[in-house]
Order: sequence, then structure tokens, then C-alpha cells
Amino acid sequence: MTDFSATRALFDLPPGLVYLDGNSLGPLPKAAPVRMERAMREEWGGMLIGGWNKAGWMAQPRALGDRIGRLIGAEPGQVVVGDTLSIKVFQALASAVEMRPDRRVILSDTGNFPSDLYMAEGLIGMLGKGHELRLVEPEAVEDAITDEIAAILITEVDYRTGRRHDMAPLTAKAHAMGALAIWDLAHSAGALPVEVAGGGADFACGCTYKYLNAGPGAPAFIYVAPRHAGRAVPALSGWLGHHAPFAFETSYRAGDGVNRMRVGTPPVLAMAALDAALDIWDGVDMAALRQESLRLTDRLIAGVEAACPDLTLATPREHERRGSQVSFRHPEGYAAMQALIARGVVGDFRAPDILRFGITPLYVGAAEIDHAVEVIAEVMDRRLYDDAGYRTRAAVT
Amino acid sequence: MTDFSATRALFDLPPGLVYLDGNSLGPLPKAAPVRMERAMREEWGGMLIGGWNKAGWMAQPRALGDRIGRLIGAEPGQVVVGDTLSIKVFQALASAVEMRPDRRVILSDTGNFPSDLYMAEGLIGMLGKGHELRLVEPEAVEDAITDEIAAILITEVDYRTGRRHDMAPLTAKAHAMGALAIWDLAHSAGALPVEVAGGGADFACGCTYKYLNAGPGAPAFIYVAPRHAGRAVPALSGWLGHHAPFAFETSYRAGDGVNRMRVGTPPVLAMAALDAALDIWDGVDMAALRQESLRLTDRLIAGVEAACPDLTLATPREHERRGSQVSFRHPEGYAAMQALIARGVVGDFRAPDILRFGITPLYVGAAEIDHAVEVIAEVMDRRLYDDAGYRTRAAVT
Repeated sequence: MTDFSATRALFDLPPGLVYLDGNSLGPLPKAAPVRMERAMREEWGGMLIGGWNKAGWMAQPRALGDRIGRLIGAEPGQVVVGDTLSIKVFQALASAVEMRPDRRVILSDTGNFPSDLYMAEGLIGMLGKGHELRLVEPEAVEDAITDEIAAILITEVDYRTGRRHDMAPLTAKAHAMGALAIWDLAHSAGALPVEVAGGGADFACGCTYKYLNAGPGAPAFIYVAPRHAGRAVPALSGWLGHHAPFAFETSYRAGDGVNRMRVGTPPVLAMAALDAALDIWDGVDMAALRQESLRLTDRLIAGVEAACPDLTLATPREHERRGSQVSFRHPEGYAAMQALIARGVVGDFRAPDILRFGITPLYVGAAEIDHAVEVIAEVMDRRLYDDAGYRTRAAVT
Repeated sequence: MTDFSATRALFDLPPGLVYLDGNSLGPLPKAAPVRMERAMREEWGGMLIGGWNKAGWMAQPRALGDRIGRLIGAEPGQVVVGDTLSIKVFQALASAVEMRPDRRVILSDTGNFPSDLYMAEGLIGMLGKGHELRLVEPEAVEDAITDEIAAILITEVDYRTGRRHDMAPLTAKAHAMGALAIWDLAHSAGALPVEVAGGGADFACGCTYKYLNAGPGAPAFIYVAPRHAGRAVPALSGWLGHHAPFAFETSYRAGDGVNRMRVGTPPVLAMAALDAALDIWDGVDMAALRQESLRLTDRLIAGVEAACPDLTLATPREHERRGSQVSFRHPEGYAAMQALIARGVVGDFRAPDILRFGITPLYVGAAEIDHAVEVIAEVMDRRLYDDAGYRTRAAVT
């Protein structure tokens, strides 16, 4: 059983703040600046070029991938870290499309994170073979999986509503129709138990700066099912995905298994922060985390629904149909969120009308939820969002 | 005039070490851990999600790009930072090929860094239109630029020999033949004055962990000539290259100018180290740096040639034909380099027989060169490389 008051002490959070935006950027693990200082002074400064071997930099994308693998139901050797989620989505999709040369439809849904859709568009444009990116409503995905589909590209948990797709049956349907399944775990990894192998996923990708708390712009990861890893075409075929990078051959030969999904020189400093962030996860039981997440999300939903009749729940009520965030709709959502942030309750806003609250048991407990409910109720009840100062939109929300 | 003893004091180098491998990984700027600590504790820890605006994270890829731009002859707004060099090469090449739809040949040379060639292979495989990656010897590039060529993909300074291609005439020939020119500046940026605009380059890319000293796996950069920036297709079309990323539209619209070459969430922590590293460059006159680099490389060549008849110079002797490294060939090059490293003279080895020494006036002076020559002479004269301990190859050299 995980002791969440113990994990909470491992984060450096500004006093008095209720941080409900860990689904966008997780907070600073106390060990991260210490680990980073070591990576910079002892490893980079002290070992210089020797750090690639002596400090294990070159092996880290695999080692860190294995640690993430435990959280998403993958075996060691099936996950590798690097690049950004958009890049990893591109590699997964390019590989999948190459494996279904006679099909021309990529299926996704309107709730998918836009970057996944943009990367698919970019790939389709480059291929120039008349592929179609077919978008349906999230509820319509299952029925839309037909034998036209080359691959489904689905984000398990919707970034706006927190709605959760059911990985195993959707993947099974895809396979029954001869399609491949790519899962984006941006809002799943560290948010709830994920079973990429058990769910049959062909490819899965995610980022590490949300629930995994590895810092702004932390690297992404990719899982390739072992049945594909030996023949998947990495598309972005960089030297560190080569079978023998330091032979400096002039022709590409794909590396073993998921290793081929590595591209360029790995981001050593960012990986140091990720390393420290994952230390916290090593002690976490994912089933216990999920139980606590559901208890807290239920508490937030009940509290807000009792106190704020103007807020409409956008997140499914059923446990199995949601991730670890709670979203409400309100026409003045942007200004309302600014008013909340000004009062120390930090969630975020997603256009056109969504107030998002990420629930992260590692550092958020019932007391914070109750305080958040009080502040939300005050802001909504007294229409504090009417203050003109909350209506000016920043460049980045 | 740049005072190189002053820049030297800005680096944290292990005492007694002669570090001649800054062409692979630059050393630690003393300000980098301080800047990183601030980015982690004050920005990430203190501002949390607010750091994207308040700490300027979202704007950094452009701001840092502008600072690099000054070093490579670009105007503000023409360079953006992100991803790895392999990814940026891919974007440049995919854009260029898209702009020459009737041509099927990409021209490069056998001295190009393999990852550039691998990325080209990956792109060609994806396009499936019968493109050819044509490799010629470095000396044969100019004659090989014909009206078949869609784009030339050339690394200005050869990673093994230090041989320098002449950007302006090769680019002019490419343009005369209707081809586009992509320049990889991995061994140029911070090594010598570069003029991407003056040289007519259509695209240019580089990394920041070599001569720019931004740390292991630091992000890459890309330059797009302003005449192309408004219509170049970024190929890897991620959300931060979108015209309005935070509108979360379901269709991609390319951002303004070079902004469209951004892909995913930027690597904030790595950019903090880059920011600190570029502070040093702000005070450097590139012409003075080049003068000092040539003085030091001449001194190393003269010293080694006088003392080590067994070492064969692999770098062109003419100033205008080389970058800022000196390479020698020797059949026992690997073991010889291990023997040098064991004696505190750090260069590196590139298969099959190259000993590389990067010359970086920011922190290497005449005294270090003279000491390096003495140690090289001792190792070669006494055949210290015969020690079996130097013959075992590490996984990474």
C-alpha cells in the first residue's frame, strides 16, 4: 500500500497552493535539482565526453524506458525514451501505415490531442498516396473501425473531458478488422494502471512531464509490441537507432527491437530530471494510486456539483470511463479559471469552455480537494469571474 | 577583440586536463548549473504551469534561435531551437524535396555524418517515389551537382577529417542547377564564422552541444531562408509549429516563418543550459575566434608533424579548407587515443584510423597545444599504444 503522505513530502510545492494542474505539468520532485546538479557538475563537468560511458548516458534511454514500462504494463526492453510525444506518435504511425500498405484510412477522434492529428496530417502529406485521416466523435470510434482502417490513433484519456477509451476492446476490434492500434498515453501514464501488453496495443507513446513529473519539456517514450519490434520501420531513422551507431556506416541498418526507435543524441540533462522523478514512482502501487484517484475525483465532483449549479460536469461519472482529471464546462470558463488561480487553486482552461482539474494522489489529498471546492464555490457563487482583470487572455493559457 | 583568457575562466574544466574534444561535447560553463538551478527551483518549482508565460519558456526556442543566428549569419526570426539535429535535417530535407517535386536525387558525400544519410534514407523509404541518395567523395560534390539534383545535403566541416566545404560556391552551383542547398553546421557553429544568408543556404541545421557548449544532448537548431519560410512544409507538423497552438484546432495550419519548424513541447531544462552557454558567445568576435583557431591548429599541426613521423595529417593544410579540428591517421589510432586520454590529453577516435583533436579557443590556448604535442610525441615515440590495456574497445568511443 502506498503512503501518499510520504510521496507528498517528496515534492517541492509552493506553500498554500492547491495544484490541480499536474495533468499539464507535474511539480518539482525535491530530488530532481540534486540529481541535475550531479549530472551537470560530476558527470558533464567532471567526465566530459567520458560521461557517455562512465555515467551511462548512452544506456539511459533504455534504462528509463524500462522503468516507465513497469507503469504501463510493458516488459523490460520494450520501451525507449527520447524526443517529444509528437515525434514518437509520428514514428508509431509511419511504422503502422507501412505495415498496412493496402489500406488508406487512419482513424482518430475529435477528442484526440491536436498534435497527434497534425502529425498524422504531415505524414499523409508526405506519403502523397491519398491517405485519409478520418475523425469521428469519441463515442463513435468503435463502430468506425472497419476493414478500411490501416491504424487507429487514439489518446486513451481525453485531454479536455478526461473521458477514457477502453483500450482492450477497441484494440481487439481493430485487430479483428486487420488494423493496428496506436495508443497515446499522455494522460494515462502515471494517472492510472495501463496495460499496453495486456490490452494488445501495437504501439504506445506518452510524455513524462505530466503525471510522471519529469519537468517542462521532458522527453517522451515509445512502446513497440514485441511482435512488431523486429520489423517496424522507424521512419525517423537516426544514428542512435542504427544497429551499430559507432561503426559510422553510410547505410542504415535498424537496431534491435525498440532500440530502432531512438533517433538522435539523447537529452542527457532532461533524462537526469526524469531519473529523479521516476525514483518516486518506484515505490508506488498503481492499483492503490487508482483507488485514491477515484476517491478524490469523486469527492471533487460531489463537492462542486453540490455547491456550483452553473458548472456542468464534462467528465464521465462512471469510474471505468474516466482518467484522473475532472472537467467542468462554463461559458465564462477562462475568466473563472483565472479567478481560481488568483486564489491559489491552479487548474487550467481548454477552449472553448472547459475548466480542467488534474487529480494527482502523489501530492494532492482530500484536504486540498475540499479547499478547492470551497474556492470554486466562492468564485462561481459570487461571480468573481466578472472581474475584467480575469478576462484578458494571455498568449498561453 | 575577444580576450580568450577571460572566456576560459568561464568554464569549469578538470585541473590538469587538456580537453581537445569540444568538437564532440563542449565543457561545462560555470554559469550553467546556476542557471539550471534557477530554472528548476524558481521557474519549474515556483511558477509551475505558469512558467510557460512568466518565465518565457514558450518564447525561448525563438529567443535562443536569434542568439545562435548571430553566430551563423542569420537575421533575427530566422532560426528556431528544438529537437535533435537528425530531426531538423529531416525537416529541412523533406521541405526541400517537396519544393522540387520533379526531381529524384538527393546529393551528399561520403564524409557526411551518417545520421544525416540515415535520415535521408528514412525519408526516401517513406516517400516511396524512387528517390535516390547519391553519395560521392567530398572532392567530387561540385561536379556532381547537375540538373537531376533536388537538394544537396552537405555538412560544412567533415566530422572525421575537418575538411571544410565552401558553402557559397557550392550553393551557387546548386541554385544554378535548380537545386536547393541544405547545410549541416554541426562542426561549424561556434567553430568558425558562418554566413548562411551570405552563402545563400536554403536551409541550415546544427547542434549546440559541441562548440556551443550547451551540454550533452542539448537541442538542435534550424535556419530557413526567409524566401522559403512562408511556404516550407515542415513535414513534422507538431502543435507548436501550428499558427495558433492554443486554439486546439483539429487541422494543421503552419505557423509564421521558421516558427512552423517547431514540433512538440520545447525542452525547457535543456534550454536553460543553452541560455547560459550562449551568454559566453555574446561577447565573442567570430573573426577573432577564427584567427586564434587557425593559429592554434597550425601550431598543433607543426608540432605533431615535427615530432611524430608516424602520424599522417588527415586535415587539409590550407586555412580556408578546414574547420577547427585537426585529425591524424594511424593504424593504431584507437589504442593511441586511449593512451593519450590516460595521460590527460583528451581527443577522440573515429573509425577506422582517425585521431581527432578539436581546437576551441574559448578554453584552449597555446600552452595546452604545446603540452598536447609533448604527450602525443611521447605516446607515439615510445609506442605506448602497444599496452594491451588500450586496445579493448569500449561500447562507445
